[in-house]
Amino acid sequence: MVGEPTGAEPGEISARLSKVRRKVIILSGKGGVGKSTVTANLAAALAQRGRSVGVFDYDFHGPAMARMLGASGQLRGIPGGVFPVEGVLGVKVVSMAFLLPDERTPVVWRGPLKLKALRELMSLVIWGELDYLLFDLPPGTGDEALNIAQNIPGLDGAIVVTIPSEVSEVAVEKSAEFCKMLNIPLLGVVENMSYLRCPHCGRIVELFGREAGERISEVEGIPLLAKIPLEPELARCMDRGEPIVLCDPSSEASGAFLDLASRLEEMLPP
Amino acid sequence: MVGEPTGAEPGEISARLSKVRRKVIILSGKGGVGKSTVTANLAAALAQRGRSVGVFDYDFHGPAMARMLGASGQLRGIPGGVFPVEGVLGVKVVSMAFLLPDERTPVVWRGPLKLKALRELMSLVIWGELDYLLFDLPPGTGDEALNIAQNIPGLDGAIVVTIPSEVSEVAVEKSAEFCKMLNIPLLGVVENMSYLRCPHCGRIVELFGREAGERISEVEGIPLLAKIPLEPELARCMDRGEPIVLCDPSSEASGAFLDLASRLEEMLPP
Repeated sequence: MVGEPTGAEPGEISARLSKVRRKVIILSGKGGVGKSTVTANLAAALAQRGRSVGVFDYDFHGPAMARMLGASGQLRGIPGGVFPVEGVLGVKVVSMAFLLPDERTPVVWRGPLKLKALRELMSLVIWGELDYLLFDLPPGTGDEALNIAQNIPGLDGAIVVTIPSEVSEVAVEKSAEFCKMLNIPLLGVVENMSYLRCPHCGRIVELFGREAGERISEVEGIPLLAKIPLEPELARCMDRGEPIVLCDPSSEASGAFLDLASRLEEMLPP
Repeated sequence: MVGEPTGAEPGEISARLSKVRRKVIILSGKGGVGKSTVTANLAAALAQRGRSVGVFDYDFHGPAMARMLGASGQLRGIPGGVFPVEGVLGVKVVSMAFLLPDERTPVVWRGPLKLKALRELMSLVIWGELDYLLFDLPPGTGDEALNIAQNIPGLDGAIVVTIPSEVSEVAVEKSAEFCKMLNIPLLGVVENMSYLRCPHCGRIVELFGREAGERISEVEGIPLLAKIPLEPELARCMDRGEPIVLCDPSSEASGAFLDLASRLEEMLPP
């Protein structure tokens, strides 16, 4: 069902993950807060800092990770399983996008099929040695989040992503509650699109209200790991498959992602 | 299961919707493109233009419609069913938010439960006479989109919402394909967060790449119904439960939403 590459043989999910040192899920309560952008750029920043990194894109309906990390092509199958596709900086990517006939085909699957696909795919992937494996999930606390929480052994924690607005804050706190219900340690919150520096006049514009990151951090008693500015260049880089640490290394956003990577390494040493 | 208000009695979904003249779903392929913001502000703009409007918020994981339309309180049950909650400008809102114990509780439901909740709720709601009923769905083409498409009789069409970036464009085209697969007429595309006018210097900043709206319109052969600017005021108004047509009626965004309402009325006269 998941495209079964020639010769691949399923193994145990836990065996497949045995050489992966840290497993982190990236969550948001609400869509469009830039969760995928944060995942892709955090992965690239960790790789830039010399870590071996993998990303599993479990968003069936809008898989963006492959494109954002410049990973194109197919999962290569051998008798022992399938290999991830390498993107920029050697980041290993496995995405639903690789199993679709083309980028524009919608996946109209209900929950049970998505669980089957997860288990099949994770039992095939030869990740090898990894310092960090990041799981990018669709927004919300639906089937995908439950499936990952219940089927991936030994999750080290979750990062929740918000934008500064109150609407996002409320939605993100549900993800925090979700983690508590499922005993997944909450590592911290990332506030994305915190502000824009006008490229014409250089002044700061707060685009989406303010300080949801601080409020979530306080309410949940977890650290505010980063405030990422909105930079028009970031979307353009992502469209071209180039994380900001490569595309515009001197930008504020690039610095923010490298700091975020460093904080994650402190919290979860590889 | 859906909180069953005292005395309410289920009816047929189609009978409940018999006096609703136009039923439109609002879709996006990708989260965070502002689909809920577009739905709430389009609803308010239609109401401002004298139409009777209802909104059904079928996003279990991040229901934002009630807050965005200033509709607080509970669905009131009577022996014949339940009444929507009235928000600003008399917009009638039914949202999962009304059935949750508090705003911060996550709904950890799998697909079949969501279908049951949809059918139960829609068989109870006394919409009365409405010119337009808008359905706000979560991003993607998963359970919720399928449930609505297969259980709400006589959908008049769908509006797809995108931001200007290519990543969003690809995701949104999946929603367009989804509509074709399910024979839902595609009314057009709304490009949200098209640009920002810097509040300090007044110059235009393209925040998220450009022109996905135009490209989708061309590829799908559907009209580009509106280009909505990103205005920091819009997020603040939404957080306060005030649509932009009330909160800042002279703004560019307010004008864009009133134009969008007018175009919808032309395409689907009430």
